[in-house]
Amino acid sequence: MLLQINGGVTAPRGFRAGGVHAGIKPGSEKRDMAMIVSDVPAVSAGVYTRNLVKAAPVRWSSFLTNQSDTAQVIVANSGGANACTGDEGYQNAIRMAEKTAQCFGLSQEMVLVASTGVIGKQLPMDLIEDGIELLAKSLGPDEAAATAAAEAIMTTDTAKKEIAVEFTLGEKTVRIGGMCKGSGMIHPNMGTMLGFITTDASISKEMLQRALHSDVEDTFNMVSVDGDTSTNDTVFLLANGMAGNKRIVDEDADYTVFCAALRHVTSFLAKRIAEDGEGATKLLEVTVQNAAQKTDAVVLAKSVAGSSLVKAAMYGNDANWGRVICALGYAGVDFDPELTDITFKSSEGAVQVVRNGMATEYSEEVATRILSAAQVMMNIDIKNGNACATAWGCDLTREYVDINADYRS
Amino acid sequence: MLLQINGGVTAPRGFRAGGVHAGIKPGSEKRDMAMIVSDVPAVSAGVYTRNLVKAAPVRWSSFLTNQSDTAQVIVANSGGANACTGDEGYQNAIRMAEKTAQCFGLSQEMVLVASTGVIGKQLPMDLIEDGIELLAKSLGPDEAAATAAAEAIMTTDTAKKEIAVEFTLGEKTVRIGGMCKGSGMIHPNMGTMLGFITTDASISKEMLQRALHSDVEDTFNMVSVDGDTSTNDTVFLLANGMAGNKRIVDEDADYTVFCAALRHVTSFLAKRIAEDGEGATKLLEVTVQNAAQKTDAVVLAKSVAGSSLVKAAMYGNDANWGRVICALGYAGVDFDPELTDITFKSSEGAVQVVRNGMATEYSEEVATRILSAAQVMMNIDIKNGNACATAWGCDLTREYVDINADYRS
Repeated sequence: MLLQINGGVTAPRGFRAGGVHAGIKPGSEKRDMAMIVSDVPAVSAGVYTRNLVKAAPVRWSSFLTNQSDTAQVIVANSGGANACTGDEGYQNAIRMAEKTAQCFGLSQEMVLVASTGVIGKQLPMDLIEDGIELLAKSLGPDEAAATAAAEAIMTTDTAKKEIAVEFTLGEKTVRIGGMCKGSGMIHPNMGTMLGFITTDASISKEMLQRALHSDVEDTFNMVSVDGDTSTNDTVFLLANGMAGNKRIVDEDADYTVFCAALRHVTSFLAKRIAEDGEGATKLLEVTVQNAAQKTDAVVLAKSVAGSSLVKAAMYGNDANWGRVICALGYAGVDFDPELTDITFKSSEGAVQVVRNGMATEYSEEVATRILSAAQVMMNIDIKNGNACATAWGCDLTREYVDINADYRS
Repeated sequence: MLLQINGGVTAPRGFRAGGVHAGIKPGSEKRDMAMIVSDVPAVSAGVYTRNLVKAAPVRWSSFLTNQSDTAQVIVANSGGANACTGDEGYQNAIRMAEKTAQCFGLSQEMVLVASTGVIGKQLPMDLIEDGIELLAKSLGPDEAAATAAAEAIMTTDTAKKEIAVEFTLGEKTVRIGGMCKGSGMIHPNMGTMLGFITTDASISKEMLQRALHSDVEDTFNMVSVDGDTSTNDTVFLLANGMAGNKRIVDEDADYTVFCAALRHVTSFLAKRIAEDGEGATKLLEVTVQNAAQKTDAVVLAKSVAGSSLVKAAMYGNDANWGRVICALGYAGVDFDPELTDITFKSSEGAVQVVRNGMATEYSEEVATRILSAAQVMMNIDIKNGNACATAWGCDLTREYVDINADYRS
């Protein structure tokens, strides 16, 4: 049984966290550096941006999670992406790890680094180093500490995003906690999103990486805010084994339970990212069912969730299904538009607007009421097989434009 | 020598045009039906949407331009796309051709049909048929008639789009005239754009289709407003031979001259579509040079021109080149970001903002002034070969959202 509990990344045993104001972004008073520390070395896994342009911390951290089995600390900053910063930027990412490691008497290879913010500027390393010292002293094991960390990685996010769950493996209680940020530059294959997940489960490196990798495909990678994939996307998962469960080393029943709990955490966080899309007023959940194969369903669902015209229509509560079928049609997947059904759903009810590629006799008034809810679902049935996929997005609003027209100023 | 002359589709000899108000969109007083007629049968060529969902008139017209060498009339309406309308819709498209043919004593196979507007509603055929009769009586050979036709196909366009050019083949003066519409749902592989091009050149079916096809790849298909490809995109090219030039039947010198003139017409129209992107305040021209191959340059240029974040930054006159290099990085083309140069140009000057993947010491003030112009160019040099491509787009504004949040109401 899976229980959602209070707290975030400090909910699992043996993790402390913190968030401080280091002053990285001039004029801002918000927290801008976060840290998560495991009391003991934790098995580490990471998934990173597929953008050809990779930020310096992504290069450092992916090197670490590929080369070694464990890590003990995550240090992150907002206010600067440390991307397109050349050798100096890469040395700065390593320096962040080194400085952090010194605070805990660790080697720098135990420190994962993540950054988010504007591309192309060198980090203010004096402020960063002071921030790291401050962080190391401010760590706590409680909910408030987790929340401080979650707040510190926010950029244009309007709400902190964290969750924790509890379940049992054998006789042991196991917890997973997670936090993330992301609201602009979010797209399939990950946007500027940082996700940090902790667990006290005992699990092998191989199984942890496998669990994270397949999970991200169906959760964070199915979120689209604006079609842009960032240079800094990162998800870390640290498992410190302190729950004392029998170590998971195989795709056994315990692995399945662990994966289900992980899915609960990551799909919760993915939806929070989608609904906090820059300027968004509602969450859009697009499910394509009865596709010939999973990849078809994925491509079609993402095409609809990512269409600017669909997103603008959702903002206007306009049941403009023509734009939905149009976005299906240009996705590059073979299906028969004349077999396609489309249904809109929300807390206000459900209405089928398309049957076999043509309009039903639906009421525009009813459809508009359904679309006016804060969470809107579209079910698209293409009657071509039995594969299914869900993508999450948001509406496109005037505020999105306002936010992005002068992000740097 | 190529001369740009006044007028549009009636500039070539033997073409008449007209535009009338048929009342297709309730409550609107604007012209909503257009017609272009050649005095004699004209060699016909067409290029159509690649969306899997094809509107009824696209199915009818592509059938015609594939099956027969000539056509004589184009009839078009705005106010309804006649897409996702089933058999009834297809019969209505044929009925538009039949009714038009009757007015001129032609067979319906000589009439190309195009529609634009909202998807999923049946056309009001009584109004359409009255409109066709009215059109047949209103045709004129002058500039005003061409303009009336160009106005009648506008939907959210804020300006009519037409052009004519004159050049010589042998001793003969040849003209090409063009008109188009399109401002939303515009994207690579054509948006909801209709383009009608006339010429009095004498040219074979095969060469005309070849000329149009390769031309569209570099012009209309390089325009991106919002990433959505419509169900109705159509470009027609009619060549009636009345210039009396030696018939073009081969890729000879005359063909080259003809193609250059056609390129002038279509690239002019493509840029007008981009700068009239829904809500746009400026034209964005993105050139990628020194790519390993043409397709690389095309994909990279389109990725930048289509990025919501780049477009929003342009709206804010913000030299946020990080978003440009990010859009290059996720385009799926292999290149070295650390060799990339980026320069912004406009009537206000030029500034190189990136050299070898990192910021130059440019002045933000100067960059902002350059970006504030109505036409902004980005030159991106990836130093990986010698192929080049240009894409056109526009900025993303609050007005885009306003237009698309309630397009149907």
